[in-house]
Amino acid sequence: MKIKTMYIKDVKPGERVSGSFLVMEKNIAFSQKGSPYLNIRLKDKTGEVDGKIWENAVEWDKVFKKGDVIQAQGGAVSFKNTMQISITGVKKVDDADIDLSEYLPVAKENSDVMFTDLMAFIEKIGIPCLKALLHAFFNDEKITALFKKAPAAKGFHHVYIGGLLEHTLSVVRLLDQVTNHYPGVNSDLLITGGILHDIGKIYEYSYDSIFDYSDQGRLIGHIVIGIEMLDAKIAALEEFPEHLAMELRHLILSHHGTYEFGSPKRPKTLEALIVHFIDDLDAKVNAFQEFIVDSDDDSNWTPFHRLFERFIYKG
Amino acid sequence: MKIKTMYIKDVKPGERVSGSFLVMEKNIAFSQKGSPYLNIRLKDKTGEVDGKIWENAVEWDKVFKKGDVIQAQGGAVSFKNTMQISITGVKKVDDADIDLSEYLPVAKENSDVMFTDLMAFIEKIGIPCLKALLHAFFNDEKITALFKKAPAAKGFHHVYIGGLLEHTLSVVRLLDQVTNHYPGVNSDLLITGGILHDIGKIYEYSYDSIFDYSDQGRLIGHIVIGIEMLDAKIAALEEFPEHLAMELRHLILSHHGTYEFGSPKRPKTLEALIVHFIDDLDAKVNAFQEFIVDSDDDSNWTPFHRLFERFIYKG
Amino acid sequence: MKIKTMYIKDVKPGERVSGSFLVMEKNIAFSQKGSPYLNIRLKDKTGEVDGKIWENAVEWDKVFKKGDVIQAQGGAVSFKNTMQISITGVKKVDDADIDLSEYLPVAKENSDVMFTDLMAFIEKIGIPCLKALLHAFFNDEKITALFKKAPAAKGFHHVYIGGLLEHTLSVVRLLDQVTNHYPGVNSDLLITGGILHDIGKIYEYSYDSIFDYSDQGRLIGHIVIGIEMLDAKIAALEEFPEHLAMELRHLILSHHGTYEFGSPKRPKTLEALIVHFIDDLDAKVNAFQEFIVDSDDDSNWTPFHRLFERFIYKG
Amino acid sequence: MKIKTMYIKDVKPGERVSGSFLVMEKNIAFSQKGSPYLNIRLKDKTGEVDGKIWENAVEWDKVFKKGDVIQAQGGAVSFKNTMQISITGVKKVDDADIDLSEYLPVAKENSDVMFTDLMAFIEKIGIPCLKALLHAFFNDEKITALFKKAPAAKGFHHVYIGGLLEHTLSVVRLLDQVTNHYPGVNSDLLITGGILHDIGKIYEYSYDSIFDYSDQGRLIGHIVIGIEMLDAKIAALEEFPEHLAMELRHLILSHHGTYEFGSPKRPKTLEALIVHFIDDLDAKVNAFQEFIVDSDDDSNWTPFHRLFERFIYKG
Amino acid sequence: MKIKTMYIKDVKPGERVSGSFLVMEKNIAFSQKGSPYLNIRLKDKTGEVDGKIWENAVEWDKVFKKGDVIQAQGGAVSFKNTMQISITGVKKVDDADIDLSEYLPVAKENSDVMFTDLMAFIEKIGIPCLKALLHAFFNDEKITALFKKAPAAKGFHHVYIGGLLEHTLSVVRLLDQVTNHYPGVNSDLLITGGILHDIGKIYEYSYDSIFDYSDQGRLIGHIVIGIEMLDAKIAALEEFPEHLAMELRHLILSHHGTYEFGSPKRPKTLEALIVHFIDDLDAKVNAFQEFIVDSDDDSNWTPFHRLFERFIYKG
Amino acid sequence: MKIKTMYIKDVKPGERVSGSFLVMEKNIAFSQKGSPYLNIRLKDKTGEVDGKIWENAVEWDKVFKKGDVIQAQGGAVSFKNTMQISITGVKKVDDADIDLSEYLPVAKENSDVMFTDLMAFIEKIGIPCLKALLHAFFNDEKITALFKKAPAAKGFHHVYIGGLLEHTLSVVRLLDQVTNHYPGVNSDLLITGGILHDIGKIYEYSYDSIFDYSDQGRLIGHIVIGIEMLDAKIAALEEFPEHLAMELRHLILSHHGTYEFGSPKRPKTLEALIVHFIDDLDAKVNAFQEFIVDSDDDSNWTPFHRLFERFIYKG
Repeated sequence: MKIKTMYIKDVKPGERVSGSFLVMEKNIAFSQKGSPYLNIRLKDKTGEVDGKIWENAVEWDKVFKKGDVIQAQGGAVSFKNTMQISITGVKKVDDADIDLSEYLPVAKENSDVMFTDLMAFIEKIGIPCLKALLHAFFNDEKITALFKKAPAAKGFHHVYIGGLLEHTLSVVRLLDQVTNHYPGVNSDLLITGGILHDIGKIYEYSYDSIFDYSDQGRLIGHIVIGIEMLDAKIAALEEFPEHLAMELRHLILSHHGTYEFGSPKRPKTLEALIVHFIDDLDAKVNAFQEFIVDSDDDSNWTPFHRLFERFIYKG
Repeated sequence: MKIKTMYIKDVKPGERVSGSFLVMEKNIAFSQKGSPYLNIRLKDKTGEVDGKIWENAVEWDKVFKKGDVIQAQGGAVSFKNTMQISITGVKKVDDADIDLSEYLPVAKENSDVMFTDLMAFIEKIGIPCLKALLHAFFNDEKITALFKKAPAAKGFHHVYIGGLLEHTLSVVRLLDQVTNHYPGVNSDLLITGGILHDIGKIYEYSYDSIFDYSDQGRLIGHIVIGIEMLDAKIAALEEFPEHLAMELRHLILSHHGTYEFGSPKRPKTLEALIVHFIDDLDAKVNAFQEFIVDSDDDSNWTPFHRLFERFIYKG
Repeated sequence: MKIKTMYIKDVKPGERVSGSFLVMEKNIAFSQKGSPYLNIRLKDKTGEVDGKIWENAVEWDKVFKKGDVIQAQGGAVSFKNTMQISITGVKKVDDADIDLSEYLPVAKENSDVMFTDLMAFIEKIGIPCLKALLHAFFNDEKITALFKKAPAAKGFHHVYIGGLLEHTLSVVRLLDQVTNHYPGVNSDLLITGGILHDIGKIYEYSYDSIFDYSDQGRLIGHIVIGIEMLDAKIAALEEFPEHLAMELRHLILSHHGTYEFGSPKRPKTLEALIVHFIDDLDAKVNAFQEFIVDSDDDSNWTPFHRLFERFIYKG
Repeated sequence: MKIKTMYIKDVKPGERVSGSFLVMEKNIAFSQKGSPYLNIRLKDKTGEVDGKIWENAVEWDKVFKKGDVIQAQGGAVSFKNTMQISITGVKKVDDADIDLSEYLPVAKENSDVMFTDLMAFIEKIGIPCLKALLHAFFNDEKITALFKKAPAAKGFHHVYIGGLLEHTLSVVRLLDQVTNHYPGVNSDLLITGGILHDIGKIYEYSYDSIFDYSDQGRLIGHIVIGIEMLDAKIAALEEFPEHLAMELRHLILSHHGTYEFGSPKRPKTLEALIVHFIDDLDAKVNAFQEFIVDSDDDSNWTPFHRLFERFIYKG
Repeated sequence: MKIKTMYIKDVKPGERVSGSFLVMEKNIAFSQKGSPYLNIRLKDKTGEVDGKIWENAVEWDKVFKKGDVIQAQGGAVSFKNTMQISITGVKKVDDADIDLSEYLPVAKENSDVMFTDLMAFIEKIGIPCLKALLHAFFNDEKITALFKKAPAAKGFHHVYIGGLLEHTLSVVRLLDQVTNHYPGVNSDLLITGGILHDIGKIYEYSYDSIFDYSDQGRLIGHIVIGIEMLDAKIAALEEFPEHLAMELRHLILSHHGTYEFGSPKRPKTLEALIVHFIDDLDAKVNAFQEFIVDSDDDSNWTPFHRLFERFIYKG
Repeated sequence: MKIKTMYIKDVKPGERVSGSFLVMEKNIAFSQKGSPYLNIRLKDKTGEVDGKIWENAVEWDKVFKKGDVIQAQGGAVSFKNTMQISITGVKKVDDADIDLSEYLPVAKENSDVMFTDLMAFIEKIGIPCLKALLHAFFNDEKITALFKKAPAAKGFHHVYIGGLLEHTLSVVRLLDQVTNHYPGVNSDLLITGGILHDIGKIYEYSYDSIFDYSDQGRLIGHIVIGIEMLDAKIAALEEFPEHLAMELRHLILSHHGTYEFGSPKRPKTLEALIVHFIDDLDAKVNAFQEFIVDSDDDSNWTPFHRLFERFIYKG
């Protein structure tokens, strides 16, 4: 594992640059005189910056591609808000030498800590078959590894390594409070539903470097992938009551609340209704907060948020 | 105050009936031979039942009107699910003699107890002007009296005497948990918003007997009535920071979440977003639960719910 | 098996009635004098008729329930368009003695003939794993038995025993023509998708007597049930290419075309697009035709169709 | 007050430029060699033009900001449709020296003339309390000053100084004709409603230099601001009939016609219905006309209008 | 022509009835003992009333049908709000003897007077070809006769004989005022468009007795029928500028304003925009007014209006 | 007719360019030093390419305009994916010398062949008046010439010379298969409807050079233009049954299926329903296929399709 020695947030205009960065975009362009140059966008966990390769662009273009981590040499030029790196030399970094959490945004809290906190909720579940089901999920090392790493979305909320886990834990903590508030709710079903509601997202995205949808993410989607994962785990258990399986499937299928947001069924049980609301609340609170944090400080308002279709007031 | 001695749930077919009931519907009909009779619908806090006045319908029709409480004499006839009261004599009960909580559905918990619980949240508020504002509201005896009595809706959720208070307290309790969960939320603003979000409903409905909309309920609506009440209370305070007033107004205006549900603004602050979700959650959970309780026991499913546009699964 | 000797379409007013019928509705009502009577709705494959039991209604009410087949004695009374049966005696028929196809509407063509026609399409499929998959489905006797019997809907199109098979065969025949028309379409995938697109409907409805939704029909729905059935069959095959499985899943998931009609994904492949259109065409043509057939002959127009939200012109 | 001596529409390519302009946009950019320059957008009441500061951009950047009026020196360069000003020197103009109507688009008619015309309608009102209310509004100097200056929108119709007044007067003139046309309309209420329907817009926008939304514009909106202003004026009157206040509030609340356009109530009185239609008509006619005027002359069609989602035919 | 001697509004309970009425509904029903009787609904221009034929219903049923005018003998029975006529004898009235305006609601103003007023607008049109076109329309006796008689709708606004003419005249009068208000509007085109916008309605409905849609009303609709009528009249003129024909067609096509209300094009010219708004305003004001007039006097509110989806406030 | 000697797909970077091309876009731009140059977009049937005129831009700008075919001299410069032509000399080509099918995309199959195939369907029609009607259309040389040339859309499906004919033939072939599949369909009406459903498109677009909407395309649209063409042809026939004319009109009017897609009536006959579905299917299959063909080969997915609002999977 190569140690990352320079972070984008620390680069100062006028200084020499020599560090490793993830390539988010790369495309060739031409000056008005027709000479080619490379526009690239570099990223690490501390920020993003534009880069230019002015010389020998065609040759350098073959050395690396979008999604690679590169070791770049050059110099930072910056005026006011806009810093740019003029790159003079590039070397692709081997995958084996990369610690992705240095290049991609990561959840504030450590994944293992969050995972431990989530597992503690499983132990409090009283219905044995639900507890067994959850054990089957998280004793599956492949699932657990991906679950600790996946983002919760490609571009709306919890868009960072560990985001899915952070969102899931947040939802479960809220559900744990809500379940005491409303008598008559099946709290074990509610918590189990909360833990598994987005589990299909571990296969909906690719997040080995740049976050994107996987093929099955676009063709099947995390809701139905989650059902398939649930069916596989239930099938491997010795026994699991059919009516509980059906309610759990329904809860996952309906957690987006309405048809227009991709749920093939709308909530028809109390538990499905509650998981839908808490999931939506947590996603949108995170989206508000992240958007506020990312916006400039010199206005009471964020820029226009494309998905919320509004400006958000920072006060 | 007249003591109510007979409740609808206790009436048995074949027995004599002599008791006081609220008249929900009244209309004259005709048998095929052309003789008039009265169809009425009677209610008390334990249920509803149809009644018929077969003889002298035209005369009895003048004795009382829809919304009155009447003392009725007659006999119960019943087959299977359907009981009916054949009424032979009626006397209108004076308003002064009526304890409405005997005739209308009431919240499970006592209004004074819930009110005390709600007031305790006010005392925990740290921002003095918000606390002063809430005191101004609830030191207003007229507001407090209505607030303890109003339903939260005419026909969807918390449709009973004390329903508005029950809903408000439930929302505030949930907000109190949520506020600890999300750092960066202005908890005093959130709790104040939770307490006041539906305050305009005390004037949106009439609930002296049958629940209905008031004129201003239909023409202005509780959202804007709430703003007007807020403005009046703020104007009477010595000082109140304008930016806080603006955020509080925004929170009330936007708590329905979208234009189509009657909010002239959509949530643009974190606190407004959260109050919207918790309000919606609490209303719909209550609506689900009440609808499940009201449905027959012989099916896994409720009847079709007109507003949710679905059947609800009781499991 | 009891031989059905009298059909509703043959009953003439004024005649004695003695025959077996399916009870579609049953409820108790009261004459204006308060005497109870039973309203029932009787059905066999030739039509429906109202029935009344005027005497001893409370006792008869206990003898049978909605969904039963009864042997009824009585007399037909009829005026112009409206015939009614006055029933004087009833006996419940044992399930073992019932041939449901005598009481429920059935497809015009024989199920076995249609099934043979459909199987012939499987034999023409060239991709071995798809053929193997389809064999796995239809060598499963439970699936085959239900598939021959299920209706295609509860109340829109192909609402009769064998309707699902009839609809599926019709879709496949059309797809077979379309596939020759458009070069570049994967015809094996298209035909396989056509055969399986609604397979989940065998568990979406109950059709042992009166057609209704099953619990999993309402909570999960035939689209996702179909995916689960597909996954189970693929898992049991020795090998099945993942990319083909994914495209087939996508085709089933997206065959309703839009989110608002319950598809969690919209068609993103050519084959999924075509199956969606042909399925929709066939369902709506059948719905038009059945509605026209069921309407009176004395107008150029059908009555208002609730789902199409229009009158249909018969010309 | 400084006299403006040069207008954008009179600037000719090749000439020296020395005049005062409002800065609409300002941002720093970089030539391909990395030298910074300033892009600015200049405006006066006769048009807009791009400007560039090629030399010492970083220093000049500190001298003025977006929204300022500057005295600029330089030269005009122009080819065909596109003229650009190369600026070599800049001085910020003091606010006290600025007559904004020289820099922002203004209504065709003089504000004082329009205001006098509008006031004449008030004198024709017969119901004393409505006349008193309107006097209370327009005897308030702060309101009157803003009302004469405010635009009617930020970017759709009547987007110019005096636009709100022009729109209001136009609506009132049309209402005055309509009221004679339909018997049974309360013409005093109608005219009062027409005058006050958009009064909240004086606080919805900022229009001291560049037009934008105010904070309360985005958080509360002119509809509810208008209600608050109305309530304040009514509270200060000796008496005002509650039912009339309620109808007036309703008229303002509902004048956008539907929920989706931000009205929390839809029109439920004849007067509210009419004001809604006439307001909508006048806004859209103005938007059509302004868009046609602003478009090039060499086509029968305007460019695509983003809000109308169509091209407009000029004939 | 037979003189109508008795009007529904004058019939008093207890009196003999002998008069001619239009039959709106007729169906056979059965008493609980199985004896048939006829339910009918009778109408004249003063109101509607239910009727019953208790004796020999099957025979009487053959004597007349829905839509006929009958001479009925019997007696009025009435209680409170509900009067009913027991009919003992019926004779169908010959079509030749019927003055339909005695049986159907008619416009308040006389058709010939309104028509004269409308024609006066034609004479003020300055563009010769437009004037010629309108003359071509109204010199066509068939068109004129139908245009004076047709209702403007089947069940929303101006639902009475002469309603189309009344609505058209009202729209034209308003347009005449608006055209002076907005400079730059082609007033001749506007008035011509106003006169012809709904002309296709003369073939959209049948109104020889009960108002209903015609076949082409349902299959083609008045918008496109109007285009076809316009094309036919223009083809018969010696010359007519194509661009004007195109704008007039566009105006008719787009006068419903949006796709969802059946316009295949949305307004793209100023004149089309204005006609759309004034047409919509006039239709809805009439609908409000008629609904208010038809509702009971004992409430501030009308009943729920199904198309407006609201209660209307009468004040 | 001038022979085209050089095609865009054959131009290689570094070579001299001397050939004729259609000008799709032309606009003047300025280098940072303020010197003007011309950006143009060139097209022929094999592709598109950008061009620049660096010298004497203002003079060359007057020599030709958008939509012209020019003879251009210059040299190709290309880097990787992007080739550009530096133009040094231009001459406008006379319209008489242009074979547009060299410059615009054309259908794969020859127009005359397709037309012959379509005519063969007419001969199979059994109802004489329908056959006569179709003869009337295609014996009209103006119609036929345009029909062979028109595209089927401006930018969604079959966007090429001959596209309307190709789409029409494809729809008719599919209808011919469907008509055998569903008994009870009027196949002559169906085929006639298929042939004429989009006939109005010959006047909806301009396609003499760059494809665009015509004025009547935007103001009237092909649906109503088609009705007008139909009416004109029917009027010229000796006799044509009115009911058939009405059904044919309805079929054309309703073939977009819903109001929101511009049909003023929705399908109310079986034939209209089928034509709608097959038209929609054929348009969307073509749109999918063309979009897939146009996209790069290095991904399983096309770029985002703006109208379908999705990525399309190529597999």
